[in-house]
This record gives sequence, C-alpha cells and structure tokens, in this order.
Amino acid sequence: MTSLVLLLDPIAADAQPDDVELAASLTFVPPEEPILSAFDAGAGRGDGIFETLGANDGRARGVEAHLDRLAASAVKLDLPMPHLGQWRAGIAAILEALPADGQASIRLVLTRGTDPSGPPTCWLTGTTVPDRVPERTTGIRVVTLSRGYVNDVGESSPWLLVGAKTLSYALNMAALREARRRGADDAVFTSTDGFALEGPTSSLLVRQGNTIVTPAIQHGILAGTTQADLFDFLASEGFACEYRTVEASELLRSDAVWLVSSVRLAAPVTAVDGTAVATDLDLTARMNAALLA
Amino acid sequence: MTSLVLLLDPIAADAQPDDVELAASLTFVPPEEPILSAFDAGAGRGDGIFETLGANDGRARGVEAHLDRLAASAVKLDLPMPHLGQWRAGIAAILEALPADGQASIRLVLTRGTDPSGPPTCWLTGTTVPDRVPERTTGIRVVTLSRGYVNDVGESSPWLLVGAKTLSYALNMAALREARRRGADDAVFTSTDGFALEGPTSSLLVRQGNTIVTPAIQHGILAGTTQADLFDFLASEGFACEYRTVEASELLRSDAVWLVSSVRLAAPVTAVDGTAVATDLDLTARMNAALLA
Repeated sequence: MTSLVLLLDPIAADAQPDDVELAASLTFVPPEEPILSAFDAGAGRGDGIFETLGANDGRARGVEAHLDRLAASAVKLDLPMPHLGQWRAGIAAILEALPADGQASIRLVLTRGTDPSGPPTCWLTGTTVPDRVPERTTGIRVVTLSRGYVNDVGESSPWLLVGAKTLSYALNMAALREARRRGADDAVFTSTDGFALEGPTSSLLVRQGNTIVTPAIQHGILAGTTQADLFDFLASEGFACEYRTVEASELLRSDAVWLVSSVRLAAPVTAVDGTAVATDLDLTARMNAALLA
Repeated sequence: MTSLVLLLDPIAADAQPDDVELAASLTFVPPEEPILSAFDAGAGRGDGIFETLGANDGRARGVEAHLDRLAASAVKLDLPMPHLGQWRAGIAAILEALPADGQASIRLVLTRGTDPSGPPTCWLTGTTVPDRVPERTTGIRVVTLSRGYVNDVGESSPWLLVGAKTLSYALNMAALREARRRGADDAVFTSTDGFALEGPTSSLLVRQGNTIVTPAIQHGILAGTTQADLFDFLASEGFACEYRTVEASELLRSDAVWLVSSVRLAAPVTAVDGTAVATDLDLTARMNAALLA
C-alpha cells in the first residue's frame, strides 16, 4: 500500500499564484511524520472540513464537484475560503506521485488551525486501495438508524451543520459500529418523521421501475458527488432521475437500493433491517464500470 | 502564556506500572511541534474523546470526576479503556510544569489513533489562562438554539453519542458563532420538545427560590463536572439541588441562571434571547470563590 501526505501552505482564495508559487506551496512529507499541533482545532474539536475522492489509473473522479463541495462546506463553517486552484494542484501532485495503475483514495482536509483568526491547516493524503471491492458485487446488508433529526432540520437550524462535510464524524463512525453490532455492514440514517436520508459515509439511491431517486439535498443531507456522477450516467441510460423525500418504508418495496460513495462506489443493498430487498446486479455492474471508466 | 504538551504512550487499563514505568510513559514535547499523523482518526474524523480541567495555583479541580467521565466516554465510543493512573500521573506532571501561581486549563485527549485495532493516540495540554475572567462578574447574554433532538434521544439512539464528550465539536463551535452573530455571548441548546439542555461547552444551572436545578443527564446531556462540584457547595449552603427536565420557558422566570464550565466557571446569564433575566451576583461570587478555593 502506498500512503502519501502533502501539506498545503494555504494561499488566499483571491490570490493569483503562478505555477512556481503554486508548486512551492505544496510539500510532500513522510506519511508517518506527525503534521498536526496538539492545539489544532481539527485535532481537538473536529473543527474543519474534508473531501474524499476516488481515483483510478491516475485519474481522480469528480474533482470539480468535490472542490465545489469543499468550498460550500467552508462557507457553512465560516472557514477561510479555499483557493481551489491550489487544491486542484495538490490533487494533481498526489495523482502524479501515486502508482500509475490501480485504484486510490485522495482525502482533502482543511481545519480551522491553531488560531481562529489565523490560517487554516490544509493537507491531502493519497492511499492506494484494493482493485477488487467485494461489496460492489456481493452487496451489503444495512440497518436503519435514527439520525435524531426531523427531515428538514438543516433549513431551520443551520448551526447543526447537517449539510456540511465536517471533520466531526464520531457519530458517523459510531453508527457504522452499531450496524456491525447488529450483524449488518452499513447503515441508512432515517429522520424522526420517517424518511430515509443517507448512509454515514455514503449517499442513498433507489430504483423504482425506470426512475432513480435520491433524497433531496435540502433535507439535511450532504450533496453526493458520486450520486451526481451516477445521475449523469443513469440519465444517459434512459432513466428518469429525481430528487425527493424518500420514505424509509420505500426501501423495502423498490426494485433496487444502493449506497454510493467515492471509493467503494455503488454497493447494492441486499437487506434492510434483516429483510431481503430486490437488487439489480446488472445495472450495478454497469454503474460501477461507468464510474471507473 | 505558558503552553505545554505531554504525550502519553498508552498503557493497558489493567496494567500495574511502577512509578518508573509510569514516568517513562510521559514525554513533554515542544508545544509548537506537530504530534498527530494525517491519518489519525482524531485529526480526520473527530473520532476520539476529551476532557478540559480547570486549575488554580497548582491544583486541578475535579480530577476524579473528569477521569470517570473520560472512561465513560471511552465506553460510549468503544475506545480502549484509558489507564486512569497514567492520566492522573499526566495531570500531575502538567501541574508540576505549569507556573505555581494562577489559573490554567488542562486538556486530556484520546483519539482512536491511526489504526482502529491499534493503540489510541493520547496527549495532554496545559495552558495558563488570565486570572481575571470578566464573564464571571459581568455575566453573559445567551440565545436559545435548537439542538435538533427530542429531549430523551440519548436513551433511544446511543449511536448519536449525545452523552459522550467527543472530539466532534464542530457543531458546538458553530452554535457559539451563531450566538455571536445574534449579538449574544453564548448559547443554550434546547430540545425539539421545548426543554433547555446545556450550553455548547457548559452546563446549565437555574435557581428557583431555595432550589438549584440542572437538566437531568439521562436526557442526552453531558454530566457536568463543574455542575457537580457546585451542587456539593450549594447543598452545603442549604440549597436543595435537583436533576430534572427544565422547560426553556423557565429560564425567563427563574431567580438566576448560569452556564458553568471548568475554566470560565460560573457565568451568570443576564439575558435570554434579548430578554433580561434575574441574576444573583452575590451567590455567583460565592460559587466562583468556592470553585477557586
């Protein structure tokens, strides 16, 4: 396994660095070397944002969508606006340094740093991942877990940061452990008013006949970059693609259910709370092939 | 300002190290030196726990209560159980290294580390803080902000980690920023069913005649160590001390309201959502004197 760590010396969002300045702002450090202060807000309070991109054979998927979401998360957390050109250059440098062939995961992290009025702390990591991901073909069993919130909480209480991709992921990790404790592989969060929302680290897709549905993002859900890529592909295949509220009970009476994410890609859901659900493995294979193309 | 960072080489909870082994497991590092890997779960996912202790003239307040809560948080997050003797020794070493006089803040942090099945990453920081904290006498204006949860969500959905002191504090920090945006100094979280819960980094106390009330901890609230110390003091002063649900509307018709925390101590609330509330500055002064004694 290859692991890379690239530090960014942050550039102001409105700066116009030339290629030499851009390159000088990026520094590879040995992956085992500590990079973060004990006083960093990212280390001590999960106060920062991140993105995870999937890559294949030297190309990263959805770079612009991930950069847009990074910027949107920065706005939601009142963080300094990232210089997207610098992050783009960072992704390119990581891709250059990774093995030319095979799959990889690239993570972008921006924290509030050691001083709230000072510069953020910024880094990227690149990690090779196995080419064969069994979940893409054998599927995953999920349990539904309450997210504790009503469906539209993101609109009424923006300080809950439900639509931002923050470093405060302890709850998401706890939900995955709870799923495994219940004998499942993953979870689908549900709202207190009965809607299916998303997975702890993935977006939810449902097929009903010729229509593919994902929960509407205004409902306290993270906009999914892989989901957006898949909507493009599925629309080109003739499917109608819709954003709307999805009742939790719909998962049991759909023609296929997936959790989709940047690195695992589309994982077909085979069971919800112990009840088998319909799968569409042929479409799943085509979705994953399209993402990896 | 003095800043100290002490790394812990974690000892298994059931080990019985002698004093030499204990001392050898503690290493001071320069405070500006990075200590955390880019791949640490604390840095990348807020996946860990912490405690903040107040100290005065070389003594830390509520050491055992904070250690107990650290252990309780570890259980809630399925983290390796901390060796409390080692953390106790760490606190003692920090106190020894801090200036002999004056107030300080000591932070204990335990993350899931770089490998979920490997050792946690553990460190303490010690930081001197100003002796004069104006909020203790002039008070704070608060706004109520929905926490998005029903009052008893902690019982029904433990994976939401509401009673654990996790590193995933981005939401708490966002709530403080929202309070300042609204012209206030701090916030009181409320439940969706109308109860007052706690501040983003503090516990809530209310005086009604001869009774002091704090929201019951089974209701998704962090057990407050400073609140517990104050209950001991207030009971000795003849007050009846109660844990029960507190309706948000009670804040406006009580004889005094406080947000209490380890370092700022008891801050009297002077206004809630722009409406002035009764204060008891004499009792506040005695409470803070007792905490600092």
